[in-house]
Amino acid sequence: MLREKPPGHGHTEEGVLEVLDVVVRHPQAKFVLSAMGAPPPYVVDRLHSKGVVVGAMAGSSEHAQKQIQSGVDIIVAQGSEAGGHTGTISSMVLWPEVVDAVSPVPVLAAGGVGSGRHVAAAFALGAEGVWCGTIWLGSSESELSPALRKRFIAARSQDAIQRKYDTGKPLRGLRSKWTDAWDAPDAPRPLPLAAQKLLVAAALKRFELADAADYMGYMSGQIVGRIKEELPIREIMARLKVDCHQTLERLRTSGWQ
Amino acid sequence: MLREKPPGHGHTEEGVLEVLDVVVRHPQAKFVLSAMGAPPPYVVDRLHSKGVVVGAMAGSSEHAQKQIQSGVDIIVAQGSEAGGHTGTISSMVLWPEVVDAVSPVPVLAAGGVGSGRHVAAAFALGAEGVWCGTIWLGSSESELSPALRKRFIAARSQDAIQRKYDTGKPLRGLRSKWTDAWDAPDAPRPLPLAAQKLLVAAALKRFELADAADYMGYMSGQIVGRIKEELPIREIMARLKVDCHQTLERLRTSGWQ
Repeated sequence: MLREKPPGHGHTEEGVLEVLDVVVRHPQAKFVLSAMGAPPPYVVDRLHSKGVVVGAMAGSSEHAQKQIQSGVDIIVAQGSEAGGHTGTISSMVLWPEVVDAVSPVPVLAAGGVGSGRHVAAAFALGAEGVWCGTIWLGSSESELSPALRKRFIAARSQDAIQRKYDTGKPLRGLRSKWTDAWDAPDAPRPLPLAAQKLLVAAALKRFELADAADYMGYMSGQIVGRIKEELPIREIMARLKVDCHQTLERLRTSGWQ
Repeated sequence: MLREKPPGHGHTEEGVLEVLDVVVRHPQAKFVLSAMGAPPPYVVDRLHSKGVVVGAMAGSSEHAQKQIQSGVDIIVAQGSEAGGHTGTISSMVLWPEVVDAVSPVPVLAAGGVGSGRHVAAAFALGAEGVWCGTIWLGSSESELSPALRKRFIAARSQDAIQRKYDTGKPLRGLRSKWTDAWDAPDAPRPLPLAAQKLLVAAALKRFELADAADYMGYMSGQIVGRIKEELPIREIMARLKVDCHQTLERLRTSGWQ
């Protein structure tokens, strides 16, 4: 039986090291991505000694350079249009900036990727590949409840808004009756980081337990506007590949030079 | 001698029609862009009757569709990383969304364009060309004072911030001692649209007259981080072309397909 952990344990150094122990014991783990800043060099070394490739997510070229100094193998450059906590720099500006800053370390492009045209654009901007999040959330295999999945399919790009109401830090997610209430002119300002989370955690949990989809603001990037129907991931992947191929073919045969 | 006009006259219908009169009297005018919403159809018709091509700037596919209904010939899709007043959707998400919404009307891609790689990315995302603003501001021909031009050259991408302190609406421009003061935790919230402009107009004018560059927050997109030196526009254009050509060549000869 698993020992009970205090809340937030997974974000402590002790908690991270426990997860690391599990990762290095399992030979299926081929890649680990740090999404919470530069991993300490001893963590990178331990993963490398087991043959695990290590990546880190960066929202600025300064962060990416720090992560390279920690010894990571791959940078995921994530623009501000992505879901969740991000930096302020958009993918169009960030991707080539990070590519230039860390070359020859390979960069995966994240934030706003939802079609093969985006994959081709990422190649044009110097990335070696892409990293997608939001487009899986409307899929048949998604972890979301059917009610919330429907909201993902209905949402427009501008419905993935950045606000501080859930964690105290800017977080991009679906607009909801909950965010509308916080956006009202007479609403209080959100509290700082930890305090805001404490203030709202119980309410958010109740929305989830009641599957009150209209009040739930699941993390989402702006590319949510491109999700028009529920599809299996196999089909989403196939369409990305075909669209990317057609885009590269269009660029090859165009008059542009 | 020109008749004295009340402030804001250029933004009234009467003021716009006066400008339109000047445009249609001058055969050099080949293109007019509306950056303040859909132009009324009679304005588009008058310009068309003189052979002038009409464009409109859009920050969402809904706006772009309205502008097409007004009869405009070209849409400039401007992402939220651009300087000045913008929508909330980033270029990566917005450009292909607008291309799909208004096809076969041609789309120029704006917001975050500062290299030939960006031009190639715009082609990949379905645009017919690009529209640049910020990259001219550090040029030898720029309208900026030498002190302010230096700040453009020194600025990083994350220094082009969106704030409401100058007009009451979100406006992207260079971070300054002025925006830092408004960002302080004990600063008042900005007033609504017209009131905030009235509140700060005199102070902003004094900064400008004193060439107090540290306090001035000239409009700027996030691509400002790519301006590393003062160059003549001829040289900036030449580099855009060479870089775009090399990028398309790299995509043509890559193993990706």
